[in-house]
Amino acid sequence: MKVGILGGGQLARMIALAGYPLGLDFVIIDPSNVAGAIGLANHLHGAYDDKVLLQELAHQTDIVTYEFENVPASIAQFLAHHTQIAPCDQALAIAQDRLIEKKFFNDLNIPTTNFAAVNSLNDLEQASKTIGLPAILKSCRMGYDGKGQVPLQGPEDLASAWNSMRNAPSIIEGFVPHTREISIIAARRPTGETVYYPLSENSHSQGILRVSRCCIDDPKQQEAEQYLSRILEELDYVGVIALELFDVQGQLLANEFAPRVHNSGHWTIEGSETSQFENHLRAILDWPLGSTQSTGYSGMVNFIGGLPPSEHVLAIKNTHQHLYAKQPRPGRKVGHATVRANDHALFESSLEQLIQLAEQHRS
Amino acid sequence: MKVGILGGGQLARMIALAGYPLGLDFVIIDPSNVAGAIGLANHLHGAYDDKVLLQELAHQTDIVTYEFENVPASIAQFLAHHTQIAPCDQALAIAQDRLIEKKFFNDLNIPTTNFAAVNSLNDLEQASKTIGLPAILKSCRMGYDGKGQVPLQGPEDLASAWNSMRNAPSIIEGFVPHTREISIIAARRPTGETVYYPLSENSHSQGILRVSRCCIDDPKQQEAEQYLSRILEELDYVGVIALELFDVQGQLLANEFAPRVHNSGHWTIEGSETSQFENHLRAILDWPLGSTQSTGYSGMVNFIGGLPPSEHVLAIKNTHQHLYAKQPRPGRKVGHATVRANDHALFESSLEQLIQLAEQHRS
Repeated sequence: MKVGILGGGQLARMIALAGYPLGLDFVIIDPSNVAGAIGLANHLHGAYDDKVLLQELAHQTDIVTYEFENVPASIAQFLAHHTQIAPCDQALAIAQDRLIEKKFFNDLNIPTTNFAAVNSLNDLEQASKTIGLPAILKSCRMGYDGKGQVPLQGPEDLASAWNSMRNAPSIIEGFVPHTREISIIAARRPTGETVYYPLSENSHSQGILRVSRCCIDDPKQQEAEQYLSRILEELDYVGVIALELFDVQGQLLANEFAPRVHNSGHWTIEGSETSQFENHLRAILDWPLGSTQSTGYSGMVNFIGGLPPSEHVLAIKNTHQHLYAKQPRPGRKVGHATVRANDHALFESSLEQLIQLAEQHRS
Repeated sequence: MKVGILGGGQLARMIALAGYPLGLDFVIIDPSNVAGAIGLANHLHGAYDDKVLLQELAHQTDIVTYEFENVPASIAQFLAHHTQIAPCDQALAIAQDRLIEKKFFNDLNIPTTNFAAVNSLNDLEQASKTIGLPAILKSCRMGYDGKGQVPLQGPEDLASAWNSMRNAPSIIEGFVPHTREISIIAARRPTGETVYYPLSENSHSQGILRVSRCCIDDPKQQEAEQYLSRILEELDYVGVIALELFDVQGQLLANEFAPRVHNSGHWTIEGSETSQFENHLRAILDWPLGSTQSTGYSGMVNFIGGLPPSEHVLAIKNTHQHLYAKQPRPGRKVGHATVRANDHALFESSLEQLIQLAEQHRS
């Protein structure tokens, strides 16, 4: 079986590495000649919207999936005419637009922070009164890793914030003093069989995920699964999905979902019986899903903008290194490492060492 | 860093899959165009003794290793003049000849079954009296998966057994009614740092390994480590090594060693904190070695001559599939699957289902 992937970055790389043992082969489309999955897949070199390439991808593979959600719905629909795709274009369309996404959550009775559409400075001024300040102004589309987001501390910030959006359709979201940021990842196959991973607790800095920890027996697990199950069933979803939530003194508020494998689930490679990458493939191929049970304590640290020497990473007990074959530049995720251990003290000690090491090499 | 591998079969494939997350790239030499590691490494297509190819391999890579031990010593020495190699040619030379290997064990006070050199029918007749019958006649060289071995039940078998050897230098080994076959795998880096995996208990059939189980807290662990440590130190060994032993009512007798990653260690991919494949790379690159601690109960079943459908393999709880991209033919290893679980009853139940499934598709 051959799987096509739109995008050849680290997510495609890790999907391919999980897929070879299953007997799968891979074809990627990527405009770059140095993307992380090159060398691990047949590479169709060109733009994601090149219809000749897309037809070639459909021709060479049995099913096509994505490593990012910003695939134009028209491309997904074009592909769907030529081959099987997963997840569906509807999931992509919703995840691409923060306003549509928030309304989608609310339609499913999944709580969110207060929000309002902003298409003008006047909209923003009005909404800031009902939502209250502080708040955050975000562009509806193309936001990731904190891009396209401006904090609003007081009324004096509104004009410059709106200017920075360059008239792009936007959304204002009320600021919530959340206790913690969590995410839940699930995999669902066409039969409806669904598996949920243990919650991840996530620490961001400058809008970029730095640390995710697997939460074993978390008290909010069941509630998060209930919310995510509504999304999965509404979309008749196939593949892996990640739902990010704020835990505000015990109340969960949905922030956004990603219709793909997710950075906050990288610890599943070692920390779960079956990784999110393997379960994504098993889900889209309609194969039995693997157990998501945690194999012990685990947590992941991103390498951002620079890589510690491998000898230093691997000298930390029970650490597993994952490099993405990307050139470091400031703010760019170039790898991660996971600590997994049966012993809690060993886990905490190694994770702390790893966080410090990653910080020393961050740029 | 780039690693060269002589051979592009399943062992090279699994070394490469373990190496990409470490940031490594791979170049293989293999005479086949359909070997399992092709697509996962730059492929130099040709014979293992093609000196132009060997120089090209040395030129393209930082270090060269092997996926099989039958590399002629002259090739290893040739390579060693052009690049770094690991393990050393001496380890290859000893492992290639059963008689030299057995003498090597005895010189290190590692017990073996009784044996004698056989270079004629007369030698065989004499030796069968001192060694006793039943016994086994083996060619000294090029034996694997039970090939080049003839059982000797009584004196009437001697002439035909010797004829089948076609005058090849041979060895007669006394038959031992062993309680069980075990193996121990270790990794050693140039600094001398060494890690030992938990023992594997191995079941063969028709000379081919079928099932290996990780033995947690085995009473013979320490003794096996002591024997293997003598070999590692004598050879100043670098890389992963496997030592096969018979356990004869509690007495360990060394059978043979393999200077490479080993089929009886495939369960380490999921069942150990760090796999034998990753530790082989860390060892030859002189990086800190990873923990070999078992992550739970684990065992591996080989797929021989035929593959069960993936849907059936993956429907067995906690099963992990590893296919080799090889065409099935009778007696050929084409994949394996590992069961790993924290729960003992689940482990035993899944392993039993997997053994039965593999047996149904064996040829």
